[in-house]
Amino acid sequence: MSNVSGFPEWLPEERIAELKWLDEIRRVFESYGFCSLETPSVEEIDALLAKGETDKEIYAIRRLHTDDEANEARLGLHFDLTIPLARYVAEHYGQLVFPFKRYQIQRVWRGERPQEGRFREFYQCDIDVINMDQVPLHFDAEMPAIMYDILSRLGVGQFQILISNRKILEGYLKGLGIEDTISAVRILDKLDKIGADDVITQLQSGLGLSRELAARCLALASIRTSDLSFVDKVRELGVESDLLNQGLDELSYVMKELIPLSADAFVADLSIARGLDYYTGTVYETKLLEFPGLGSICSGGRYENLAGAFTSRKLPGVGISLGFSRLFAKFLAEKRLPVGPKCPTQVLVVLPRAELREEAARTASQLRQRGLNVELYHSPVKTGNQIRYALRKGIPYVWFPPIEDGGVHQVKDLQSEEQTPADPTVWMPLH
Amino acid sequence: MSNVSGFPEWLPEERIAELKWLDEIRRVFESYGFCSLETPSVEEIDALLAKGETDKEIYAIRRLHTDDEANEARLGLHFDLTIPLARYVAEHYGQLVFPFKRYQIQRVWRGERPQEGRFREFYQCDIDVINMDQVPLHFDAEMPAIMYDILSRLGVGQFQILISNRKILEGYLKGLGIEDTISAVRILDKLDKIGADDVITQLQSGLGLSRELAARCLALASIRTSDLSFVDKVRELGVESDLLNQGLDELSYVMKELIPLSADAFVADLSIARGLDYYTGTVYETKLLEFPGLGSICSGGRYENLAGAFTSRKLPGVGISLGFSRLFAKFLAEKRLPVGPKCPTQVLVVLPRAELREEAARTASQLRQRGLNVELYHSPVKTGNQIRYALRKGIPYVWFPPIEDGGVHQVKDLQSEEQTPADPTVWMPLH
Repeated sequence: MSNVSGFPEWLPEERIAELKWLDEIRRVFESYGFCSLETPSVEEIDALLAKGETDKEIYAIRRLHTDDEANEARLGLHFDLTIPLARYVAEHYGQLVFPFKRYQIQRVWRGERPQEGRFREFYQCDIDVINMDQVPLHFDAEMPAIMYDILSRLGVGQFQILISNRKILEGYLKGLGIEDTISAVRILDKLDKIGADDVITQLQSGLGLSRELAARCLALASIRTSDLSFVDKVRELGVESDLLNQGLDELSYVMKELIPLSADAFVADLSIARGLDYYTGTVYETKLLEFPGLGSICSGGRYENLAGAFTSRKLPGVGISLGFSRLFAKFLAEKRLPVGPKCPTQVLVVLPRAELREEAARTASQLRQRGLNVELYHSPVKTGNQIRYALRKGIPYVWFPPIEDGGVHQVKDLQSEEQTPADPTVWMPLH
Repeated sequence: MSNVSGFPEWLPEERIAELKWLDEIRRVFESYGFCSLETPSVEEIDALLAKGETDKEIYAIRRLHTDDEANEARLGLHFDLTIPLARYVAEHYGQLVFPFKRYQIQRVWRGERPQEGRFREFYQCDIDVINMDQVPLHFDAEMPAIMYDILSRLGVGQFQILISNRKILEGYLKGLGIEDTISAVRILDKLDKIGADDVITQLQSGLGLSRELAARCLALASIRTSDLSFVDKVRELGVESDLLNQGLDELSYVMKELIPLSADAFVADLSIARGLDYYTGTVYETKLLEFPGLGSICSGGRYENLAGAFTSRKLPGVGISLGFSRLFAKFLAEKRLPVGPKCPTQVLVVLPRAELREEAARTASQLRQRGLNVELYHSPVKTGNQIRYALRKGIPYVWFPPIEDGGVHQVKDLQSEEQTPADPTVWMPLH
């Protein structure tokens, strides 16, 4: 029996690398003042479907031995962290301080058919800001700024955070007199995948647009700038609409806050729409330049009314989600992560003889109390075997307690192979 | 719609307290050199049942919209972390270094009927050591020593870690000529719950023992010492058996290693047996003296062959598991946890006017780069409103960037209400 396909698990040395990433992400989220939240893995299926049917496959759960199947609650594992957040905010409304800023690092489940690189259980790292009535645009800029900070620290190579605003595309399409903007947006959203020719063909066949009108749609979706020049480029297309103007103002505001952080990481890309999702303003996608085939590793946007399915209060929000496990698994597979020791141990204390166990244990405890990670070897076997254990686990130092009264402690650096006298009350590792 | 009964979730200020506990537990586990492991939430149901039927209720999962129910894999959520560990070690055997020492802090699921204090989803914090062929007794002592370290640091009040060895009770019963030792052990295991009289009655009615024989069984189970005197007390009962002697030797070895750590936290309690589980030597239970009704918060023991269901190799182990969520929920309910701020923010940077956003953002970023958790207020509303936001979230400091060229930065300590000039490149919070 083995672990189930689509449900990944890592070796100890890989898990250490994963923990480093997760710790770094948490640290950055907290450095911006976001509070941690965890919701149950399980929600009522009606809640999971509250936004309408989803294209995500839900895992339902039920007790294996139930005597009353009909009366079992209809429960399912959450497939994202947004719906649980909406339910949470509606439920605990009176006890939260708004704007409510939370991060959530949790596993989600999707009953995908197992395919190369598709996980059925994986970590997502989300941040969202929810407020009463309205969310200041400042947060639309803060979301990608935080992810920029994180991705730079993780060292995932060059990346671009693509930003648009749904109002631009929708306002423009309306300005062109196109009524079925939803279908048009869905086709334009695929520009990156299917290319310009196919987008034009689909706009013609699917919506009955003229070739010229289809080309004008494409002209907008082709605009990509890492400065504010996208505004002039849109104006040059000669389409007017209030919604379009509003979208341009909002995207300009966001880009203005971001450009000082990086000259090329933030790109106004007017093809971005997050087709099937329920965003109403700013939208984000993130691409790794080295691995474009990985798709967007970090996506999100603004929603006019996040918790509408759970409360009559209007609670708009903006958020972004890092698809952690797919990104981590990719860098692991590409051998781009420093996968080192198999344990967190810094020092292995040798047990020279059974009678010296108490002395050796005292030394280990002394080092531990000073914040070091220390193993006491469990058996008084030959010293060579004890050192071999340290080498196999990637433990950098081996400690030799004195073997006779008045003897001195010694420590061996397994990298340099140097062995020197050391005092357990002050010694610190160099690496 | 609300969160589902039995699936707990916390408010942000409670979650901060939970994270503090989880971080502390992880830190101690790592300080003893245990590596982190996470296994999938999901295993094949056949794997979950590989040790035979369980009294734990399993949650099965299946895709909500499946077109081929008959061919769906039979999958379930794990109900403990021991079976996943056994499957993991068997599967990755060739890539692990033995003795394999891992910690695992994960949620588990049990389809319990919702009752007061019973969770259906909760965290367990486990450590186990698995080795080929045999596990040195040293680890039987290290398990409770680590939990002693953790429980002392969490500040859960006085506690006792009760330790026995199944060989003592079984050897004794065999020495008395009792054949159905399993049933006898199960009855004696209830001593704490049902009392001496009922144990004697049940031993008589259930096993047909004479009142005198039942009393002799009880005499052993009543032995509790926090030193090594349990050996003499057992000898005084005048029963001889090799298995009994072996158990006494093992328990003495373990207690000898533990007594130097605390004179009263470790108790040899010969009634402990962990009735339904598959332990074969040392067994542990842990009781809080203030909350005996909570039952054992931390239990475990030694198993002769952990992964027997998954491999033909003999892989014995010893482990202990902290029932985290029940313990945390209890201390939360008893208001025994310092539940403080609603977010990790240390400093709120005030946004005095819209035009000063860039300057204020730079200040926030400067402080953040020095390792502080900093929020920039999102809108240039009245300063009083910005301070009120900090007070409501429990943010201890408010920072005022200069409002004119050549002006100075100031910081206000909201606790002392003192406001002083401060330099963002060197200032550090006092609390």
